[in-house]
Amino acid sequence: MKRSAQEIKQLREQLDELTGTGQLRLVSDQAAGLHPSDLADLIESLAEEYRVEILCMLPTPLASQALVEMAEGEDRAQLLAALPAEKIAEFLRALPDDDATDLIGELEPDDQRKTLATLPVDEAGDIKRLLRYDEETAGGLMTTELVEVEASLTADEAIRQVRILGRDVEDFYTVFVIDQERRLLGTMRLDDLVVADPGASIKALVEEPSVTVSPDEDQEQVGKLLGRYNLAAIPVVTDEGVLLGRITFDDVIKVIESEQTEDILMLAGVTDEDELKHTWVQSVRTRLPWLMLNLATAAIAASVILVFKDLIEKELTLAFLAPIIAAMGGSSGTQSLAVTIRRITLQGSGSARGFVAKEILVGLVNGAVLGVGIALLAFLIDGNVMLGLVVLLAMWGNQIVAGFAGAFIPTRLDRAGIDPSIASSVFVHTLTDLLGFFLLLWLASHLLL
Amino acid sequence: MKRSAQEIKQLREQLDELTGTGQLRLVSDQAAGLHPSDLADLIESLAEEYRVEILCMLPTPLASQALVEMAEGEDRAQLLAALPAEKIAEFLRALPDDDATDLIGELEPDDQRKTLATLPVDEAGDIKRLLRYDEETAGGLMTTELVEVEASLTADEAIRQVRILGRDVEDFYTVFVIDQERRLLGTMRLDDLVVADPGASIKALVEEPSVTVSPDEDQEQVGKLLGRYNLAAIPVVTDEGVLLGRITFDDVIKVIESEQTEDILMLAGVTDEDELKHTWVQSVRTRLPWLMLNLATAAIAASVILVFKDLIEKELTLAFLAPIIAAMGGSSGTQSLAVTIRRITLQGSGSARGFVAKEILVGLVNGAVLGVGIALLAFLIDGNVMLGLVVLLAMWGNQIVAGFAGAFIPTRLDRAGIDPSIASSVFVHTLTDLLGFFLLLWLASHLLL
Repeated sequence: MKRSAQEIKQLREQLDELTGTGQLRLVSDQAAGLHPSDLADLIESLAEEYRVEILCMLPTPLASQALVEMAEGEDRAQLLAALPAEKIAEFLRALPDDDATDLIGELEPDDQRKTLATLPVDEAGDIKRLLRYDEETAGGLMTTELVEVEASLTADEAIRQVRILGRDVEDFYTVFVIDQERRLLGTMRLDDLVVADPGASIKALVEEPSVTVSPDEDQEQVGKLLGRYNLAAIPVVTDEGVLLGRITFDDVIKVIESEQTEDILMLAGVTDEDELKHTWVQSVRTRLPWLMLNLATAAIAASVILVFKDLIEKELTLAFLAPIIAAMGGSSGTQSLAVTIRRITLQGSGSARGFVAKEILVGLVNGAVLGVGIALLAFLIDGNVMLGLVVLLAMWGNQIVAGFAGAFIPTRLDRAGIDPSIASSVFVHTLTDLLGFFLLLWLASHLLL
Repeated sequence: MKRSAQEIKQLREQLDELTGTGQLRLVSDQAAGLHPSDLADLIESLAEEYRVEILCMLPTPLASQALVEMAEGEDRAQLLAALPAEKIAEFLRALPDDDATDLIGELEPDDQRKTLATLPVDEAGDIKRLLRYDEETAGGLMTTELVEVEASLTADEAIRQVRILGRDVEDFYTVFVIDQERRLLGTMRLDDLVVADPGASIKALVEEPSVTVSPDEDQEQVGKLLGRYNLAAIPVVTDEGVLLGRITFDDVIKVIESEQTEDILMLAGVTDEDELKHTWVQSVRTRLPWLMLNLATAAIAASVILVFKDLIEKELTLAFLAPIIAAMGGSSGTQSLAVTIRRITLQGSGSARGFVAKEILVGLVNGAVLGVGIALLAFLIDGNVMLGLVVLLAMWGNQIVAGFAGAFIPTRLDRAGIDPSIASSVFVHTLTDLLGFFLLLWLASHLLL
């Protein structure tokens, strides 16, 4: 049932009152009408002491799905650890194996073993197999529950088989066509199968799969392929082409969102994609190392000022101009960097030459305009034409390098297999700081005195 | 047919040779085996002179889908303008109405009218209606082609109707249940309908739709809802609940990607989400205004140095320390800003108090550590304990403000209905620059001399 944010807030307030008076039964009656995603939010907003009780009171299918929809992290892990083992097993039995694996993956190894022991042998086996894959790979995302038909059937026979197999499979949009060795021959969208001529043979209807992935494929790549080819589900196959499982669009949307969070945060020097769920202590731990690195590089760049101390003493306007030129290099470098990193994420780092050249050109033009601007400012303050020329050249040079570095460094890093987001940011800013200070003061020492 | 990047590259090289020798027929034979998305890339990589010819030689369903998959922008608009009017009409007839509308939307108004006049009246009418919606709204994304059944049917009757209606509808994963006035009663996943007991009534099977959107809903909100509720398609309805169309997950994935591009670029001061397709002239035009604003704010911040000129003349180490303290404020401010903006995108700007408090706490701790670091550095260079204390306090204060401003400013802007990404970045950096310079020099003027 759909609820507006307003309705959910009202419900939240009612629940606060009810939990205050201990009438948990009433709370769970209210909550039973929610969508699992809304229920997940509600549970996350409740005090810890009520979470376990509410979950145990709610119908198992709803409660288990709400657990899946809760944000991954300490909160959920604690809640899982607090649930009775039989209740967890009951929840897991109600879930598709990929969701069950995600939940079990958050338990301590001991609790994992205990819980798996309470499950039917074949379900426990599926989950154990899935647990072996890295969470951020195709194997970590896939479910082994799918609807498959053999190519030798007619459309009518296939639909009859889909009707039987489909009862145990959640949300299948794609029918997988296999041979007798369970090798994938192709896929059919369920809607194509439904409208097909009943007598047509599946062999004639099947599309060779436009794309398959191996279980070790990185989740980011899975997201790119599904988006690019507009697929509702991607088949996961072994090297021999045997069908292992499928990954559906809804899992992929979550992957795309979390990969994008990672990109944005990395670019800003926040190295942990789970930052949004962190307590302040965890945030200090993940952000401080990068800030300390920044302090070191900023100090190295600024030490150029110490080298030219005597010059600055004679011409104090330079102390005013130096941080401006460095900061503007940083601004342009950040623009170029963000565009390049987004380009790499969406299109890969191939064929970069034209792209780097474009960024240099942009720096050349922007640098000329900004250089004239700061030269006028310097002249107004100081009345010295030569100082104007010095800052013009320093700004211009630094802008060109900023454009070049912002495009070139991440492209190179990506080709070398290094995530470009965080390393590039440090490189580019150190370079533009250092060069900004140096160009200004070196030119001033040669042209001014 | 799936092609690896390597295979596509080889094909590309073959095509280069073939177009060179004028054997376009051979080129189009090669290209006919490609997935529309791959063909789109190939066409984009061809010289302009061959694009029209290749498109006209290829089978219409493939060529029209490749046009849809090409990146929106000048390139495609030029190609469309260069195609003969009858050919465009042929392509449009082969496409679902949302895709046809996207293509027609790129033509000049005159060409739009001419092309619409060549289409069958009902198709032209659908497209005209869709053209009225803003591209970035639910109406701009939706297709009116969908499969609907009345609630009074049994599952068996409904499937029979789906089989007939479904022949003209691409990729339907969801069946929409309506009453006699075409008001939406709910939705059914096609797989649920297929496995349902043939005698069951649709009324009993239908799920009240977990979510619907109005045609004016912002596309970003559509993306959030579809992702949150794991839907293959969202129904678009009028205020009276009458079904207008549907938006499917593949369109939403493209929306999510483009909204994220916008977020990343805005945060870096690139205000045009189409930046990735821009020529260098367009890039200069979109990036330079922001850089000039930055130059102005950087100059204002640095003018604090001019105010304290005499002080710096006496203690030149301050000219070395000032840009470091300002830069570190910028680094922490960027971290806090990126986390906050990502949080707003994913969760909205509600209940921010705890969040701002957390960022202040993080700034308090990080600032203390960084302050001690730079104080030691200053003491090593200058040997003056008091100078150490001054930079410790300046760094500390600036870090706390950076954490606060990075969290508070975007939250406030978002609540005021202003896109926080770009404005926050200017505010936060100007503030941390200004305060960094001022705190250092003001404290120094009081404590040092």
